[in-house]
Amino acid sequence: MSDTNQKLARDIATKAKTASRRLSSVRSGVKDDWLRASADRLRAAAETLAAENEKDLAAAPGYGLSEAAVDRLRLTPERIEGMAVGLEEVAALPDPVGQVIGGRVRPNGLAITKIREPLGVIFFIYESRPNVTADAAALCVKSGNAVILRGGKEALHSNRAISAVLGGAAVEFGLPAEAVQVVPSTDRELVGEFLGLGDLIDLTIPRGGKSLIERVATEARMPVLKHYDGICHVYVDGDADVAMAIEIASNSKAQRPGVCNAAETLLVDTKIAAEFLPKAGEHFDGIGVELRGCPRTLELVPTAKPATDEDYATEHLALILSVKVVDGVEAAVEHVNRFGSGHTESIVTRDIGTSQRFVAGCDSAAVMVNASTRFNDGHEFGLGAEIGISTDKFHARGPCGLEELTTTKYVVRGDGQVRG
Amino acid sequence: MSDTNQKLARDIATKAKTASRRLSSVRSGVKDDWLRASADRLRAAAETLAAENEKDLAAAPGYGLSEAAVDRLRLTPERIEGMAVGLEEVAALPDPVGQVIGGRVRPNGLAITKIREPLGVIFFIYESRPNVTADAAALCVKSGNAVILRGGKEALHSNRAISAVLGGAAVEFGLPAEAVQVVPSTDRELVGEFLGLGDLIDLTIPRGGKSLIERVATEARMPVLKHYDGICHVYVDGDADVAMAIEIASNSKAQRPGVCNAAETLLVDTKIAAEFLPKAGEHFDGIGVELRGCPRTLELVPTAKPATDEDYATEHLALILSVKVVDGVEAAVEHVNRFGSGHTESIVTRDIGTSQRFVAGCDSAAVMVNASTRFNDGHEFGLGAEIGISTDKFHARGPCGLEELTTTKYVVRGDGQVRG
Repeated sequence: MSDTNQKLARDIATKAKTASRRLSSVRSGVKDDWLRASADRLRAAAETLAAENEKDLAAAPGYGLSEAAVDRLRLTPERIEGMAVGLEEVAALPDPVGQVIGGRVRPNGLAITKIREPLGVIFFIYESRPNVTADAAALCVKSGNAVILRGGKEALHSNRAISAVLGGAAVEFGLPAEAVQVVPSTDRELVGEFLGLGDLIDLTIPRGGKSLIERVATEARMPVLKHYDGICHVYVDGDADVAMAIEIASNSKAQRPGVCNAAETLLVDTKIAAEFLPKAGEHFDGIGVELRGCPRTLELVPTAKPATDEDYATEHLALILSVKVVDGVEAAVEHVNRFGSGHTESIVTRDIGTSQRFVAGCDSAAVMVNASTRFNDGHEFGLGAEIGISTDKFHARGPCGLEELTTTKYVVRGDGQVRG
Repeated sequence: MSDTNQKLARDIATKAKTASRRLSSVRSGVKDDWLRASADRLRAAAETLAAENEKDLAAAPGYGLSEAAVDRLRLTPERIEGMAVGLEEVAALPDPVGQVIGGRVRPNGLAITKIREPLGVIFFIYESRPNVTADAAALCVKSGNAVILRGGKEALHSNRAISAVLGGAAVEFGLPAEAVQVVPSTDRELVGEFLGLGDLIDLTIPRGGKSLIERVATEARMPVLKHYDGICHVYVDGDADVAMAIEIASNSKAQRPGVCNAAETLLVDTKIAAEFLPKAGEHFDGIGVELRGCPRTLELVPTAKPATDEDYATEHLALILSVKVVDGVEAAVEHVNRFGSGHTESIVTRDIGTSQRFVAGCDSAAVMVNASTRFNDGHEFGLGAEIGISTDKFHARGPCGLEELTTTKYVVRGDGQVRG
């Protein structure tokens, strides 16, 4: 069994590596034509996709899927259209491959250029939403990489059907058939075999819960782009506009509480606590957000419950907001760096100096000044579609799009130079 | 013992993390003043440094050091001056921290800026040359990072003395004393404890032999910037200028054979082999380079010895050059990607199209056209001092200077924006 898995993983990864060598020099126009044709074909294949998806839905109760999970699994006509539009959006983005990101001519006449190149082979691990199959394939191949897709077992029929559409179009447009491969079995042990192939796979991206990411990070013999929790903070400074602070805190927490860039903790400067917190308490009561506060918060917001240190270290992903009164911006920064996950923080203030200290002090991927934490997103930043939001500091931090799926190469042109 | 090591490592790394928080917002001028003052003090401390170095030299026979290793360990007046000049050169480089590398204003008025930030804490592992202590400290601290230096046991007295000079100056200039720390023991187990501190150390850089790098890459719970062998190639195309090809091949191999960007293999297009190889054979015979060739090479160069596949996969670091006749640029690229280490390749040709196919096909950090492989170097590329030449594709590829020791942060400025 283990030998079979080992052979299967190596075989798939070797094909991907070969495909990646060809893909690296495929022109943008060809890749974009493929993406647009794939979009059309997904639309045309709606019935087949729905039939394959039906098999997954029928098997879902056997996997003990919750109603919400079954809903995420379902390929409705709107979702198929959404996938197709997603491919067209990626086609419209600039190709990062070959982009010149630096260069100079040296005194000896050597012309040095630093360009972006594909990473090679990307192993992408994700959970139940089948539309991720199309998104991930589009981003990886547009950036010149071959991708090995390993979705959840609950979505295997759907993922295969989507990948067959993209793969079929690939061959017609002269892309290698193995540019996009779906792992044919969802055996957990098989994932481990892929994670051992540091010689063939250049990057693994796990998208899912913390335990999945931790397992992958521990086992992988290649780089891993990690996307951990967002324990995001809003700090209301003593010099904040109170109405703006309530609006930003509310939007950060409640506009879509189940996502990583939603706020989990509200920090309030002691100088403004007595004015701000009673109004904030009333606002959050009104929209059904449970506040869990420090002793000072409890004095000012009678409906709040007491918070523990664990609350401050928890990504609730629900209508629960931890609250703490802190002694100025330095204390806020200290709290953020101690309890946060380096994802997104926001300060509300009118004071330039204070905002600069907050921005400089927070060791996070994105720091907002007078704006909702919810804006930390590839689309909102104008970067186009994203493959995730990295909480790593290495290689890529924050929203990761096409550029983050590339490496670089120095190209040096001379006319016979040698070193003296 | 293990508990003591664990506590010691965590204590040092915690101090480094605290220092890194302060360092991240220290201005360039302060860091540059510190570097220049440290240079002066290294010069002034030449006698003390020589005395401490003498202790290491006295102990060297006990460690079984070769004569060459003892020579690398010796701090001569010229080498102390070299260290001082190195610090002054780093002071003169632009500070990467805060550098704006992207940005835009979004339709909703959000002003988005992407800036460089220090990584945090860097664990630097190196071998016997004590001047690396000053180089590494300068590059890490100039880029806003705290550094933990773990040199070889053979150089412990010298490394401590150098670090004491830099650390003493640090405090006077208002930098945290723990910006530069030397691991006080060279216990191998202690290294393992540091490698486990993924929560405190942001990057490990091992500089040394392959087995050291492999051990570090396997054990480290944080990113590792790897600098593996250079199995570099020169490909002489059918359309090459023969005299230029000989000069470039010769310089690539023999100008300094013991370094990673020296060539190990010469690939020769079958179209030019009969003209080029006899002349090249004569040239290399004349300068004492042993050729190990494929059967076709042996026909054309009677003095060559037969090469094995192992030769093509070996970094000789000596006056030995593997030679292979290949059928055009595609076969050359295939050989490079199969046997190479992704470090540096060079093509000699007059044909633009062929050069483009070689550049695009080689999956390497640097590809030269009509220039020696020896130019793959931070100084030669005009990047300033380098901490190594990465053979990784993730985060940094090729020569790594100050910029490669940073991460990024998105800073987003608004006036009350929330998501709808």
